[in-house]
Amino acid sequence: MNKLVIVGTVAFDAIETPFGKTDKILGGAATYIGLATSQFNVDAAIVSVVGGDFPQSYLDLLANKNIDISNLEVVKEGKTFFWSGKYHNDMNTRDTLVTELNVLEHFSPVVPKHYKDAEIVMLGNLHPLVQQSVLDQMHKKPKLSILDTMNFWMDIALKDLLAVIKNVDVITINDEEARQLTGEYALVTAAKKIHAMGPKYVVIKKGEHGALLFHNDNVFYAPALPLEDVFDPTGAGDTFAGGFAGYLAKTGDFSFENMKKAVVYGSTLASFCVQKFGTEQMQQLTSEAVRKRLLQFKELTQFEIILDK
Amino acid sequence: MNKLVIVGTVAFDAIETPFGKTDKILGGAATYIGLATSQFNVDAAIVSVVGGDFPQSYLDLLANKNIDISNLEVVKEGKTFFWSGKYHNDMNTRDTLVTELNVLEHFSPVVPKHYKDAEIVMLGNLHPLVQQSVLDQMHKKPKLSILDTMNFWMDIALKDLLAVIKNVDVITINDEEARQLTGEYALVTAAKKIHAMGPKYVVIKKGEHGALLFHNDNVFYAPALPLEDVFDPTGAGDTFAGGFAGYLAKTGDFSFENMKKAVVYGSTLASFCVQKFGTEQMQQLTSEAVRKRLLQFKELTQFEIILDK
Repeated sequence: MNKLVIVGTVAFDAIETPFGKTDKILGGAATYIGLATSQFNVDAAIVSVVGGDFPQSYLDLLANKNIDISNLEVVKEGKTFFWSGKYHNDMNTRDTLVTELNVLEHFSPVVPKHYKDAEIVMLGNLHPLVQQSVLDQMHKKPKLSILDTMNFWMDIALKDLLAVIKNVDVITINDEEARQLTGEYALVTAAKKIHAMGPKYVVIKKGEHGALLFHNDNVFYAPALPLEDVFDPTGAGDTFAGGFAGYLAKTGDFSFENMKKAVVYGSTLASFCVQKFGTEQMQQLTSEAVRKRLLQFKELTQFEIILDK
Repeated sequence: MNKLVIVGTVAFDAIETPFGKTDKILGGAATYIGLATSQFNVDAAIVSVVGGDFPQSYLDLLANKNIDISNLEVVKEGKTFFWSGKYHNDMNTRDTLVTELNVLEHFSPVVPKHYKDAEIVMLGNLHPLVQQSVLDQMHKKPKLSILDTMNFWMDIALKDLLAVIKNVDVITINDEEARQLTGEYALVTAAKKIHAMGPKYVVIKKGEHGALLFHNDNVFYAPALPLEDVFDPTGAGDTFAGGFAGYLAKTGDFSFENMKKAVVYGSTLASFCVQKFGTEQMQQLTSEAVRKRLLQFKELTQFEIILDK
């Protein structure tokens, strides 16, 4: 079995959408990624940091999903990273209301000894220098490194971001971020420019419009499952990345054909994430529910047109 | 072979996009629909009207594609419908600069005798009363009637529009229009409300994000081919509808499974349309180019995940 190192935030989120409002609940990129990868029974560790205010029940929740949290550092005297946001009516745009870095401000990740030879590294959204520091701690270049990031780091740490992007195999990024990073509107052109920055595989997430996977001249487009009940898009992108990384960790096959399937798994898991607030749906998700939705996903996208090559 | 009646505008368009500007060129819903259906060698007739200013060369162009234009009325003393629009940088939104109805203002469509028993009627974008009048002239209820419309008619003739919508089997509409028509943001919910208005099949076009086909609880999602070079979105929706109708006319199979394929053909043809200004690409499109792009489309969307039912 392939080992998987996940770095990213573990956080408190307070979320407001047209459908309701939460107090501080469990959130963070590494949390969503970890919960998604737990569907694949892989050997995964979260490297992150929380404060003394982080409830033991949340730690237990992650540990009960068989996620190694021995290097999820708890800074007793510190406070957990806190993010608060409000979604607009279309659910595609949001305002950040509060960002309190707290313990993240001086976070220096330590990869557990047992995971320094992990085949896969999933760099969730965090400062690019922190992401790079995880790569630097690996005993050898992982078979597959995947980086997720956001516009925030393009604004304040572009040089560091470009440096770490150069070192990864796969980048997952949303459409607006791809445009910002490259200055190109057409996503095909943006993907080409990102290829040239380093990553052999470029995944562009388009929210309710699905996700695109680019590799040289190959393109794969997995639509998102059309849903009636989208309550909270928070964590959908991280859940996508976690499903993608988890499936690849489980199968150990990093071909384009298999990455297509990984994108489908990522989209499928993300479709669950958005149906409840925060991590609620991901905490209780059964493999049977996932299997059923994958069948739906096949029906949604597969057709038979027979053509001569 | 199934016969196909197409009603819709035949027009002059003047288009401005970030990539260029045209003088008055050939346009109109029925034109784009007709050009798309001509890929399928079906027996199709355009019912429409133009003015004395409409060049013989444009009429020849349509006739040379084996489209019956005997009931494309020429009002010698009148002027052809003229539309002018300017696309914004994102190519997804546009401003209408000029709309001169001209001969359309008093247009009363006449279905050719030979087509009054046509199996398929494609009602392109026009006043809903004109669309209804075409249905009324058919000897019996066609096997399949498809309606395309736009927000303009929702604004000024909603009652007439709802009346004709009630009588058709399929509606093709874009995402914003589906939301306007139903007051629902989620497209799944909007499609359900449109089903309840009459059409058994609802196609929601999402431009660069593809198209959705709804039938009862079945959904199919065909993404749009990601393109580097989108020059002019004019006519893409009509080309989609024409490809959809043309494929169904050719095959005569109106099952959900076959409609999925019709959506794929529609998306494929629309992907050509947007790569040149106006009808330029559609005029010269070869079946070999279409076949190649369908292969691309399969590679773009098809994957193999084997699951027990």
